[in-house]
Formats: sequence, structure tokens, C-alpha cells
Amino acid sequence: MRLTMMTDYAMRLLMYVAQHPDRLCTIAEVARAYGISEAHLMKVTHQLGLAGWIETVRGKGGGMRLAYPPEEINVGAVVRRMEPDFQMAECFRDDSRCSLAGTCGLTGILGEAVAAFLERLDRYTLHDLLPRLPDGTLVMIPDRPPVQVSTRTASPGKA
Amino acid sequence: MRLTMMTDYAMRLLMYVAQHPDRLCTIAEVARAYGISEAHLMKVTHQLGLAGWIETVRGKGGGMRLAYPPEEINVGAVVRRMEPDFQMAECFRDDSRCSLAGTCGLTGILGEAVAAFLERLDRYTLHDLLPRLPDGTLVMIPDRPPVQVSTRTASPGKA
Repeated sequence: MRLTMMTDYAMRLLMYVAQHPDRLCTIAEVARAYGISEAHLMKVTHQLGLAGWIETVRGKGGGMRLAYPPEEINVGAVVRRMEPDFQMAECFRDDSRCSLAGTCGLTGILGEAVAAFLERLDRYTLHDLLPRLPDGTLVMIPDRPPVQVSTRTASPGKA
Repeated sequence: MRLTMMTDYAMRLLMYVAQHPDRLCTIAEVARAYGISEAHLMKVTHQLGLAGWIETVRGKGGGMRLAYPPEEINVGAVVRRMEPDFQMAECFRDDSRCSLAGTCGLTGILGEAVAAFLERLDRYTLHDLLPRLPDGTLVMIPDRPPVQVSTRTASPGKA
């Protein structure tokens, strides 16, 4: 069971933008900060704009900002919006051919479990996601991903 | 967010076999009952056998049966076993390159939500899944999937 990459990227983009309330952020800088695809982030930005969580300014010097404070952007709402579906088994689909449709208990039980999953996310906002040190101090997201050092290079003396 | 097809098939196979406690069931008949792939069901059967939920008898006249009563096969345990992973975002993977790893709140919050999802499934057993009429009477799974009748064929008089 996984969330789509788009939901992951949406969360990370929102966190980055939330850390820069005083200026517009660009897709290019978010892509660079996380080392992820600009093309995917464009799609994510479009969806988040349609949902009303970010505002975009076009043209030179343009970019995006949050339309609401991080405390008002709900994690469960973002996941519901970004995931294409929550079809946990064939019986969740309109074209299901399962012989058991309408009689077996799986549909209801999986539906309950998905509701429990989302209800848990509904308890949190973007503010709760923001990176922090163990003492609670907010940590700024670096503008580049960490350099990957292979074990072999880092420990040339070891076999 | 979806479960894999293998988890769906595992649940359906277990339900079918549970309905025939008095004899061995074959992969071919389960495949026919649901109109699904024998090859996929073979993989599912192998996994369920390794996990100890079904016993298989090889050779002519062979097949499978439940190793425990349906009341003792837990839905959450089957889902945990059949799903390849619960990697809800990149930070759940060992090879994660996310700049936020270890500081952002997403990993913990998604982990909590997955736990809530599984905890809900843990409340049910295979017995709870078995197909029933609205009055609670158990319904036998038909040995063939329902025939699909297109609207056009069924209502020749309508435009």
C-alpha cells in the first residue's frame, strides 16, 4: 500500500513554500531543493492551485505562495485531493466483475480502514509537518538535497 | 491509495476455500468462480501456504483447505503479509534522498495513519468477510462470475 508520488511531492512543495512566507517560490527552486522533477512539480502545483491552497503569480519574478497559513491547510484534505482514488479492491470500482459484489464483507471493512487512515490525517495541518529539531525548533529546508557519499568512497581504508 | 491485486485475490481465495470446509478446493475452480488469472492465484496460494493459513495436498485429487477455522484468520494479518510494503512516501524507503528525512513530521503522521488503517482491519476475521444476505444468512459463492449484460442488449427498445 502506497500513496502516489504526486501526494508526496505535494506535501514537500507545501512545506517548502510554507517556510518562505515573505516571498514567492519557484518550481525550479523546489525541484532543486529536493532533487526531484520540475515536470511532476508543475502538475502538483496546478492541482494545489485548483484546490485553492496556493496562489501563483505568472511572469518574470513570478512564483507561488500559500493562500492560507500552514495551520489552516489540513493534511487529510491534501491527501484526499492528490490521490487519484482509494480503490482498495476490485469491488471499489464501477466496472467490478467480482461475484461477491454487494454480499461480502470486504468492501465495508476496507472502507472503514480507509476512513480510519484519513481520519488520523485530518488531525494534522501543514504546520505539524514542518521540519524541526528534536527540541521543536523549526529547521529551514536546505536549497539542495544532501550529497550522497557511498560507503566505499567514505571509507577507503576498509575492505 | 490502493492495495495490490494480490491482497484482493488472497482475500477472495480464502473466502472461497472457507466455504468448502468439507473438501479440497483447486486453483482452477477459484479462478473460474471469480473469472481471474490462475497464474496470479498460484502465487497467492504459495504465499498463503508459507504463512500457514492454507494447507495444500499435491497430485491428482489434490487441492487446498484452510489450516484454521475462518474465525482464526485475521484480516489485518493477511493484509500485512500480502502487501509488498507500506511505503507511504519516499522517506519510508531505505534509499530515500529527501532533504527532510529525520526532521519533517510527515513520516510519523503517515506511519500513524497506516497503523490506524491496520488496527481497524485487525478487528475482523475471515469469518466476518464471508458473503451474506442482508438478514445475515451466508451466501455460497457461485462457481462462475455473473454474466455481463450490456445495457444496449438488455433494452433493445430504448434509444
